[in-house]
Amino acid sequence: MEVIYLTVGICKQEMLQKKNAVLVDGVILNGPIMDSKAGEKFVEEACKIIMEEVIQKADDVTEKVCEWRAPETLKQILDLEMRDTGESHQKLLQLCRDVIQYSVKTSHPRFFNQLYAGIDYYSLVARFITEALNPSVYTYEVSPVFLLVEEAVIKKMIEFVGWEEGDGIFNPGGSVSNMYAMNLARYKFCPEIKEKGLSGLPRLVLFTSEECHYSMKKAASFLGIGTENVYFIKTDERGKMIPEELEKQVQRARKEGSAPFLVCATAGTTVLGAFDPLDKIADICENHGLWLHVDASWGGSALISRKHCRLLHGIHRADSVAWNPHKMLLAGIQCCALLVKDNSGLLKKCYSAKAAYLFQQDKFYDVSYDTGDKSIQCSRRPDAFKFWLMWKALGTTGLEERVNRALALARYLVEEIKKREGFQLLLEPEYANVCFWYIPPSLRKMEDGPEFWQKLHQVSVT
Amino acid sequence: MEVIYLTVGICKQEMLQKKNAVLVDGVILNGPIMDSKAGEKFVEEACKIIMEEVIQKADDVTEKVCEWRAPETLKQILDLEMRDTGESHQKLLQLCRDVIQYSVKTSHPRFFNQLYAGIDYYSLVARFITEALNPSVYTYEVSPVFLLVEEAVIKKMIEFVGWEEGDGIFNPGGSVSNMYAMNLARYKFCPEIKEKGLSGLPRLVLFTSEECHYSMKKAASFLGIGTENVYFIKTDERGKMIPEELEKQVQRARKEGSAPFLVCATAGTTVLGAFDPLDKIADICENHGLWLHVDASWGGSALISRKHCRLLHGIHRADSVAWNPHKMLLAGIQCCALLVKDNSGLLKKCYSAKAAYLFQQDKFYDVSYDTGDKSIQCSRRPDAFKFWLMWKALGTTGLEERVNRALALARYLVEEIKKREGFQLLLEPEYANVCFWYIPPSLRKMEDGPEFWQKLHQVSVT
Repeated sequence: MEVIYLTVGICKQEMLQKKNAVLVDGVILNGPIMDSKAGEKFVEEACKIIMEEVIQKADDVTEKVCEWRAPETLKQILDLEMRDTGESHQKLLQLCRDVIQYSVKTSHPRFFNQLYAGIDYYSLVARFITEALNPSVYTYEVSPVFLLVEEAVIKKMIEFVGWEEGDGIFNPGGSVSNMYAMNLARYKFCPEIKEKGLSGLPRLVLFTSEECHYSMKKAASFLGIGTENVYFIKTDERGKMIPEELEKQVQRARKEGSAPFLVCATAGTTVLGAFDPLDKIADICENHGLWLHVDASWGGSALISRKHCRLLHGIHRADSVAWNPHKMLLAGIQCCALLVKDNSGLLKKCYSAKAAYLFQQDKFYDVSYDTGDKSIQCSRRPDAFKFWLMWKALGTTGLEERVNRALALARYLVEEIKKREGFQLLLEPEYANVCFWYIPPSLRKMEDGPEFWQKLHQVSVT
Repeated sequence: MEVIYLTVGICKQEMLQKKNAVLVDGVILNGPIMDSKAGEKFVEEACKIIMEEVIQKADDVTEKVCEWRAPETLKQILDLEMRDTGESHQKLLQLCRDVIQYSVKTSHPRFFNQLYAGIDYYSLVARFITEALNPSVYTYEVSPVFLLVEEAVIKKMIEFVGWEEGDGIFNPGGSVSNMYAMNLARYKFCPEIKEKGLSGLPRLVLFTSEECHYSMKKAASFLGIGTENVYFIKTDERGKMIPEELEKQVQRARKEGSAPFLVCATAGTTVLGAFDPLDKIADICENHGLWLHVDASWGGSALISRKHCRLLHGIHRADSVAWNPHKMLLAGIQCCALLVKDNSGLLKKCYSAKAAYLFQQDKFYDVSYDTGDKSIQCSRRPDAFKFWLMWKALGTTGLEERVNRALALARYLVEEIKKREGFQLLLEPEYANVCFWYIPPSLRKMEDGPEFWQKLHQVSVT
């Protein structure tokens, strides 16, 4: 059977050919839909604004990071209301200018955030291409180029993790990648859960450090595992998981009669930038038969640097890795891969729903390219493409320079902090996170004590 | 404490000011990072290609929908390998041309698919803006404009659903929206699940029609409910859920000692375009105290049309609604809202992890604008913005015309099918899905029977 979704209008060539109006249900089917010349002109004018106001000002330090307005004020400035009739192109272009003016310039050199590192022109072009083409990555026949590109990028990332083979998928965020890993580990532990669910089963328990990303709790809650069944492992003074504490907690869980199934190590914690000791954690996972997932959403990019990849020593022993090239490598939000060591089709077995309307098995090409059924999504964005084009443009050495530069900048800031009055370094960083206290003049002579710390804490939020 | 993520390079103004090289760990910190003039020129040239090859050809029926190549051939044409050194701008621009040439032109008038309906210039501009600004929507201080826009769009969508108030969030796809709804219903049914998980609880059961989207099974599996605990309700000859069958199945589940908690009705099924009878289903949900979710990912856009909104009669009685403006309304992938009737902060209660580094409660503005903790994601794309700009451009009446036109086109095709030899309509459509058989000349005189149907099925995939 064929299904045709009739949402596409008759095109302009056909309008010219057909002289008699076809009227159905009050709609002139061969009448004008939209003036494509005016539409194209609008796009051209808007692109000029984007080029001038966003791209050319991206690295201009004389511009503001943000023209800040409080919510109620900004609501008044922006004409947010959607009305029955549309606005003129002139009004719309002004709206675009306003939106840009009052938005944060995330590529500004003074915008310090773990997701951003300035502008990358190549990934930006790739993103413009995919927005214009508007693909959905589920089957080869609909996304031939982007599926091949995703395969190539995943293969290359797997090389840097150090696996001989593997599988993977790009997801809308590191949080979602962590959820995938948690679900995969659970499926591997007990494949029946896919059909039967968790009801009546022993309590599944997973382990992660107390410095882990908050998505671990979100994932445990969403997947029906429960946040109380995330056992948080103590960290040392640098924020790294203490392997001996992990061992103790696994034994405690076993004694309680619960079912440990997963350890989530972190490579690059959110606040301190700490790297868990992967090799020692992998030993414990092997001993206890636990899946090892490494949340390298933030720290994964160090794998590209021959100088800094030692931070992730032992990552090749992981069963799965989350790695977001949209952070230090500048690929643009969102660009997040989950990589899986298993090459026996575990992703597909765990996630497939085998929708007959989409994933027919009797197509005229190799349907192993139809990777959509590895995903919890149906339509999916081609996020690998921007990373690919950027990699093609810079080469591995260009990516490596970005990582080396970020870490050198961190080292430079540390030295500056040490020299300056009123600044106090929290700890020597091992990655690009520099944690410090700013002590304002009014507190510099105050005695160390609860009152001092209470006042100092207030400084950092005001 | 302050955390600074040192990933941003020193900007060009600073480079000019500083004459002495600052060398740290072998990196010249104030040396050139990237030639921004060359980068901007690259973006300009690429934009020209996008304008000529994608946007201007978007509605040109003389162009091909896709320059098809088999996977192995396409791999040879595209130079997929990522190498140590980068490529020239000239080579990269040729790569961009190749990517466009061998990709499917999803806005082509001959591309029939439920996600696409031609090109919309306004949402496209909005997408270019957000790609250039590269925001992440979690706190007001980072995304002031886009958070206010999301709030305004959700409020407006809620008006069309017919609720007096409500809440909502944009997600990466209708599948994910359905998962959110399933998790919300479960949380409402038993808030303890967030902390305790499903282990040891009675079997949770949900109900949906046998014609529902496959994401229901994916969601049940991912959330630890289990696919066997999705009870599929029989549909009538038009693909609509039969309310009496739903009633029977709820009673059966109760007798089994399981815990029914949710009914997922579908407004616009994937294949037949059927709308479940929402009013009757809402009666059953009220009687049994079940959450009613409506998956209107595909059919929701009919709410905009005064002529066709009757298809969703009763939707105001739903507890949650998934609606994807990236389909019939042309907002571009991805643009998917989950709307929730509850206005007591259920989304936040269910999803929050209260990460202290991101969602501080003592900021200098109303932190209720920091909506990021309503999400399972951390970084999140500003998907509402493209729908907002399109809505501003066309007005509600312009959106309404798109829906009316799509359904009139479907009506027109139906009449053409009836007139033509070798075509057989499966059923009179009520939405934009037109299902039919094409009977090739070789089968037209064959007798109806198993052999006929087997051969006919083969026609639709070759």
